[in-house]
Amino acid sequence: MEFDLIDVIRARCDLARADVVLGIGDDAALLAPPPGHELAVSTDALVEGVHFPRGTAPRDVGWKALAVNLSDLAAMGATPAWALLTLILPQADAAFVGDFAEGFSELAAAHHVALVGGDTTRGPLAIGVTVHGFVPASCALRRDGARIGDLVFVTGTLGDAAAGLRCLDARGADVADDVRAVLVERLDRPTPRVAAGLALREHASACIDVSDGLVADLGHVAKRSSVGIELDARALPASPALLAAFDEDARIVLQAAGGDDYELAFTVAPERAGDVQRDLARIGCGATRIGRVVEGDGVRLLDGEGRDIALPRAGWEHFA
Amino acid sequence: MEFDLIDVIRARCDLARADVVLGIGDDAALLAPPPGHELAVSTDALVEGVHFPRGTAPRDVGWKALAVNLSDLAAMGATPAWALLTLILPQADAAFVGDFAEGFSELAAAHHVALVGGDTTRGPLAIGVTVHGFVPASCALRRDGARIGDLVFVTGTLGDAAAGLRCLDARGADVADDVRAVLVERLDRPTPRVAAGLALREHASACIDVSDGLVADLGHVAKRSSVGIELDARALPASPALLAAFDEDARIVLQAAGGDDYELAFTVAPERAGDVQRDLARIGCGATRIGRVVEGDGVRLLDGEGRDIALPRAGWEHFA
Repeated sequence: MEFDLIDVIRARCDLARADVVLGIGDDAALLAPPPGHELAVSTDALVEGVHFPRGTAPRDVGWKALAVNLSDLAAMGATPAWALLTLILPQADAAFVGDFAEGFSELAAAHHVALVGGDTTRGPLAIGVTVHGFVPASCALRRDGARIGDLVFVTGTLGDAAAGLRCLDARGADVADDVRAVLVERLDRPTPRVAAGLALREHASACIDVSDGLVADLGHVAKRSSVGIELDARALPASPALLAAFDEDARIVLQAAGGDDYELAFTVAPERAGDVQRDLARIGCGATRIGRVVEGDGVRLLDGEGRDIALPRAGWEHFA
Repeated sequence: MEFDLIDVIRARCDLARADVVLGIGDDAALLAPPPGHELAVSTDALVEGVHFPRGTAPRDVGWKALAVNLSDLAAMGATPAWALLTLILPQADAAFVGDFAEGFSELAAAHHVALVGGDTTRGPLAIGVTVHGFVPASCALRRDGARIGDLVFVTGTLGDAAAGLRCLDARGADVADDVRAVLVERLDRPTPRVAAGLALREHASACIDVSDGLVADLGHVAKRSSVGIELDARALPASPALLAAFDEDARIVLQAAGGDDYELAFTVAPERAGDVQRDLARIGCGATRIGRVVEGDGVRLLDGEGRDIALPRAGWEHFA
């Protein structure tokens, strides 16, 4: 049965790449990394009830399992190439696996990612994905390059996914159906900013993807770069759906601490800010200036009078 | 808390490699594969109650999680290099993580494997590991190279791990304590045959590691190579502990279908059999001739009169 499940997935993820010498079906895949490049490798797991609500459509789970990993490659400025998938399932459920593989392969095909290995086993529902991408040597975006005086930007809008999660329980009871659908879609089908990451490689001094919440994630940039970051709460970009569904106080929490956005937050020297916005606009990706890099440490979220806004929690921590 | 757990693991697995440009702590690791080599990549998950008994010492779980993955690299003839670890835990248990990391890092250090990425999250206990190794281009051991007339060998001995599992329940009640300890040790602390895999690269026509059971695993070699395989049940190598603990009928089942052995089963042209045994002996690894490659398909297990021996099941299938 284990092998049948892998066959179901493989049949859906059959994508040829010249750098895959030997794909699924042996003890290991054999891969040929391109000369002159570094390999960017990341792994992220999704557990039912922790990373996605029970009842999430299998197709969306498949999409999201790959999306959160491609988002990590995007944050490094890497071009995605190969993925491995571990699927832990309570029982051999061919319908689940088929739908899961459809969502997974839809996103894989969009980024020309080959599935080169996998493991399916019995157990409580969880998915692990490892992704590989390439970046020219010494060109990767890292967390440790922010410099005092740099500006802080974020792609797209923030808070929709966390708002979508609220829409699934009583806190979203008042949200209109069409708005709820938009927000839940952002929760279930995040878009990894792969092209934006490539465009940022030339410009950004540091970059991270927003998975745990903007303030928490930029906290990693601040720490690794030995700087402080000040954010202007009024500048945080919001989608029309978020503006329609939640008032300002609720919005700021969702945008600054909600997580699951998979946008890219990055720092850039002021003189390059224009180039960044131009290059991102070329690929249809908006970016908003939300703050600046300062002396000190940590991340402060400031209101219009420059006062600190306290967040209920500094991002999503799984064992909190 | 998530980050504390990773720090605990990282502190135990702090091993420097020049090809790790950027390790744990960014969105992805940055790695520099050696020119002229292929990258061998494999992933395997362990779920409590499926791949290891509840109550297994965390240190052994850490060892085994890496061992089963290194065994896959061994079966390709690859030199291990990097690992990523996903740890799904019911609660933030620093003692468990510390012990787990100790077992994991003990084996990692022995093979000079750097931990370059990880993810810890809340959920039912499960561990996923992805490993990377190098093999000179076109030199990897594969499953599809067996030729009619080749001899079939296996390293070490078979059946101890499955016997160890029996010793944990009523079926092993009669086994002496010292023998039981040896068998359970083989279940909990399998030895990946990394050096043997490297030695086999020059000689073997096909290779696989014995994880699901000898007959089931050689079935993959037979299928991928479009050949049949005949095994001599009397030739299957047994350890002194296995001989002491189980009678012949029980032994054959454990050896041929028990699984979890992590020995290497391989095929080799008859004229190279002497060289193989000499090279393996040099690294202290025994190998036993157990059969031959024939026309046809599938794997037959034969008794002294050439009659087929029926096995209760053709190896370990997780959803069986």
